[in-house]
Amino acid sequence: MRQTAYKDWRESENRSASFLKLVRDEGLILLDEKGRRYFVRLDAPIVQVGRSGVLSSDRLRSSVGRTVEIGSRRLLVLHPSARDLWETMERGAQALTPKDLGSILFESDVHAGGRVVESGSGSGALTIALARAVGPAGRVWSIDRRAEAIATARTNVERAGLQDTVEFQIGDVRRGIGVKDVDAVLLDLPDPWLAIPSAWDALRPTGHFVSFSPNMEQVKQTVLALRDGRFAVVRTLELIEREMEVRDIGVRPSFSALGHTGYLTFARKVLDTF
Amino acid sequence: MRQTAYKDWRESENRSASFLKLVRDEGLILLDEKGRRYFVRLDAPIVQVGRSGVLSSDRLRSSVGRTVEIGSRRLLVLHPSARDLWETMERGAQALTPKDLGSILFESDVHAGGRVVESGSGSGALTIALARAVGPAGRVWSIDRRAEAIATARTNVERAGLQDTVEFQIGDVRRGIGVKDVDAVLLDLPDPWLAIPSAWDALRPTGHFVSFSPNMEQVKQTVLALRDGRFAVVRTLELIEREMEVRDIGVRPSFSALGHTGYLTFARKVLDTF
Amino acid sequence: MRQTAYKDWRESENRSASFLKLVRDEGLILLDEKGRRYFVRLDAPIVQVGRSGVLSSDRLRSSVGRTVEIGSRRLLVLHPSARDLWETMERGAQALTPKDLGSILFESDVHAGGRVVESGSGSGALTIALARAVGPAGRVWSIDRRAEAIATARTNVERAGLQDTVEFQIGDVRRGIGVKDVDAVLLDLPDPWLAIPSAWDALRPTGHFVSFSPNMEQVKQTVLALRDGRFAVVRTLELIEREMEVRDIGVRPSFSALGHTGYLTFARKVLDTF
Amino acid sequence: MRQTAYKDWRESENRSASFLKLVRDEGLILLDEKGRRYFVRLDAPIVQVGRSGVLSSDRLRSSVGRTVEIGSRRLLVLHPSARDLWETMERGAQALTPKDLGSILFESDVHAGGRVVESGSGSGALTIALARAVGPAGRVWSIDRRAEAIATARTNVERAGLQDTVEFQIGDVRRGIGVKDVDAVLLDLPDPWLAIPSAWDALRPTGHFVSFSPNMEQVKQTVLALRDGRFAVVRTLELIEREMEVRDIGVRPSFSALGHTGYLTFARKVLDTF
Repeated sequence: MRQTAYKDWRESENRSASFLKLVRDEGLILLDEKGRRYFVRLDAPIVQVGRSGVLSSDRLRSSVGRTVEIGSRRLLVLHPSARDLWETMERGAQALTPKDLGSILFESDVHAGGRVVESGSGSGALTIALARAVGPAGRVWSIDRRAEAIATARTNVERAGLQDTVEFQIGDVRRGIGVKDVDAVLLDLPDPWLAIPSAWDALRPTGHFVSFSPNMEQVKQTVLALRDGRFAVVRTLELIEREMEVRDIGVRPSFSALGHTGYLTFARKVLDTF
Repeated sequence: MRQTAYKDWRESENRSASFLKLVRDEGLILLDEKGRRYFVRLDAPIVQVGRSGVLSSDRLRSSVGRTVEIGSRRLLVLHPSARDLWETMERGAQALTPKDLGSILFESDVHAGGRVVESGSGSGALTIALARAVGPAGRVWSIDRRAEAIATARTNVERAGLQDTVEFQIGDVRRGIGVKDVDAVLLDLPDPWLAIPSAWDALRPTGHFVSFSPNMEQVKQTVLALRDGRFAVVRTLELIEREMEVRDIGVRPSFSALGHTGYLTFARKVLDTF
Repeated sequence: MRQTAYKDWRESENRSASFLKLVRDEGLILLDEKGRRYFVRLDAPIVQVGRSGVLSSDRLRSSVGRTVEIGSRRLLVLHPSARDLWETMERGAQALTPKDLGSILFESDVHAGGRVVESGSGSGALTIALARAVGPAGRVWSIDRRAEAIATARTNVERAGLQDTVEFQIGDVRRGIGVKDVDAVLLDLPDPWLAIPSAWDALRPTGHFVSFSPNMEQVKQTVLALRDGRFAVVRTLELIEREMEVRDIGVRPSFSALGHTGYLTFARKVLDTF
Repeated sequence: MRQTAYKDWRESENRSASFLKLVRDEGLILLDEKGRRYFVRLDAPIVQVGRSGVLSSDRLRSSVGRTVEIGSRRLLVLHPSARDLWETMERGAQALTPKDLGSILFESDVHAGGRVVESGSGSGALTIALARAVGPAGRVWSIDRRAEAIATARTNVERAGLQDTVEFQIGDVRRGIGVKDVDAVLLDLPDPWLAIPSAWDALRPTGHFVSFSPNMEQVKQTVLALRDGRFAVVRTLELIEREMEVRDIGVRPSFSALGHTGYLTFARKVLDTF
């Protein structure tokens, strides 16, 4: 089976080249002096930049790293990074924050070529982060019960040029996941403990289970269920992010803080335990 | 130029397949009941497991996700994740922690196919995280002035089977970086502000600058230098990680905490500014 | 010796009762359903409650712990606590927050009968906390260079019925403090290090120095100056407060957080050191 | 009315002086160069200082703020502050930490002349903080079911010279509190919610309820019970303390951190609600 996967990968070569091209060239970020970001698609010769005016796609493409004037505004042109895409996403639901996305990707070992399942689709924030991390040789299944959630996530994923890496499915992961041997299952659900059996079935041995929950009761039910014998290395953490303000006259943490977002629970599928 | 890069990528196909094979099959993690992890290389038919005993590589390979008995000990066999590799690294220097690694990778947009430079090499913790994130089509240059740092990092990178993705160089990045058009430059140096001109030269437009520093004075000098006109979107943050303890009788943050590690500063190279 | 002291205490009962009566009966707090607090003075037979209406002072005094209707609003009547006074203070400047006030009082050992100096007067938040903590047998000198700061602080202190415990002085503590042998000197100044010699002169041996500063540079200059030989037990800390949200369906930290306020530096005056 | 009260205060000056004399002269703190503190009682002409040697009480009394040589050691002599007493307490149980003590005292408005109840007695850490805060005109009832807890707390309270302010009782506050009209009831119990009815009976209207609990389940049960109609202004918070390290070469938070201690829940007794 592993063999087949690698054969597929070799076949995916052209797709891969297109992939990075898309990520970089499909759209650009325009940043104003106040730090506000705007995403513009480059799918037509002339693009509309908010209500500020129009500019040619070619001009924008050749201005990456430089400022351009659009109407009376000066805007800095950037290739879209994962964070830029996150900042400019359409928000249909509470999106996972960068601090949690970074930790999820690292702790659950999402890497180039990986095959991962997420549910729900949310606004696509995790979907996009996963798609960028697994790259053209990888695959993301994004499953949600609500068609409208998938619609929002799909819009954001397409905008990021990552649609060929992501497969959206309408479905309830608590009743089963139609993929096998995946490297990670990532859950942002109100009742993640109900999806633990499906996650176990979908994961490869020692594959990664991740769950994000705002409340401690959700953490408790999930962790106790994970400890029931088919998962190991169960661990829950919370990340607190503090932005620092650096000025000539003084360095200090920001007076405005990022509050609680949620707890992250990690575990690995095993076939037997101690 | 982009064309050439992609041609290289196509040529790298066999290497890629080998790459993931290496990552997964070169070694395994053995976990004991107390949560201690041991890394074993599978480079001989029979492998020594600490002082506990020996076992055949084939037996270990076929036991992933299961426990094995070695001498009088029961050990759980796991495919090595990024975190497993981190936990079992040889530590020659203070290594970056997972909370910071996750944030660095996300915020600086390290992705499949990326080309990145880091300095110093440290113990290879960031090197390994970068190599896994850029995958077989990407490239990591790890530069350090001290041959012994590189030796430690190289040992850890080879153990992780990632040696083909990483190029080690002895050198002082404050005097220049011999690579151009890279996606990110990541610094863990006592005086990162001195390497800012070299970083600018090495980065592609809108490429990512990252610096990790424990002290606020380092942050201040770095941020003020970054603001001098050739970088934008300058931002410093700190992550605080709290582990949660979940038991039937109660959920709470851990009584023992992870202290300060360092501040993360991010910026992007630009060609002109507001 | 013990005997005498306690005999004095017993005799002081009437006096103490009067003191508390003053603190309690000068004003009351009205709390609405949304948690907003209003302070009303009971210095006339009929009191105006915001724009809601009027009520007799006697009615309010006899309703402590109960709700009253004023106009169309229902309000809960509370004896004013230190926190209530803080919540309803006039804010002329950034006031110290309860988390810092509690720590300052404990760490600098402010206690019944103590004699303490503070500068600046700020909005009187610390002044009030100090006056309540030292009680009728103690004394607070509140010194500020700006007459308008003292005016605001004095208004808040009088409202709290604590004016006889506090002596306001217009002056610059960097040039000297006209009181000797005090138990604590508490500074909330932009350049606290310049007031260290005056603080040393004013303090009794082993008396407490406290400084509150938002920036790390201020902390550094202050701590290095304190270490120059006439202070011991120098220590700086920061407190982060997280409010918890408790509901039937879930317990978690608040999504909105209290950001950085400042660092607290503590030290004790000594006559010689190691 | 004001006049009379302050006349009483003036008269009480001798008494107050005696009180402070007691607190100050009963014992002293000796601090060594590594920051370790030792408490010595001055109840005999010659005192033993650990295993280092002996010194006369008079010599120690006249050396406050100075170093003395005892055997081969140099020690700094300090008047004992609340924190010193806390650092040198006998620990029979997990003691509340200074960060929590400061917040408890401020948020529950413990002030000179106050009458407060605590249970359990723990090691006496809160008892001592309360006794110092209410002063000679106040009163602390410390109630515990376990005679041995009271024995430890009593030892620490006597060492601090505060025994005349504190009344220890063996008893179970869940079954009732034999004092009425107190200003605050402070609980450090595994099941604080069971003591809520007793606390209500003991408190004066708008008096303060405080509970300290490590686990979120305890917080939840307590808060939901408090909301059942006889308490208002219910609030739970957690304090995180970060010590800062200040050196010439750099300022940063400490690499070793203080972990979780517990959640603080505050509420006020009311006679009716909205």
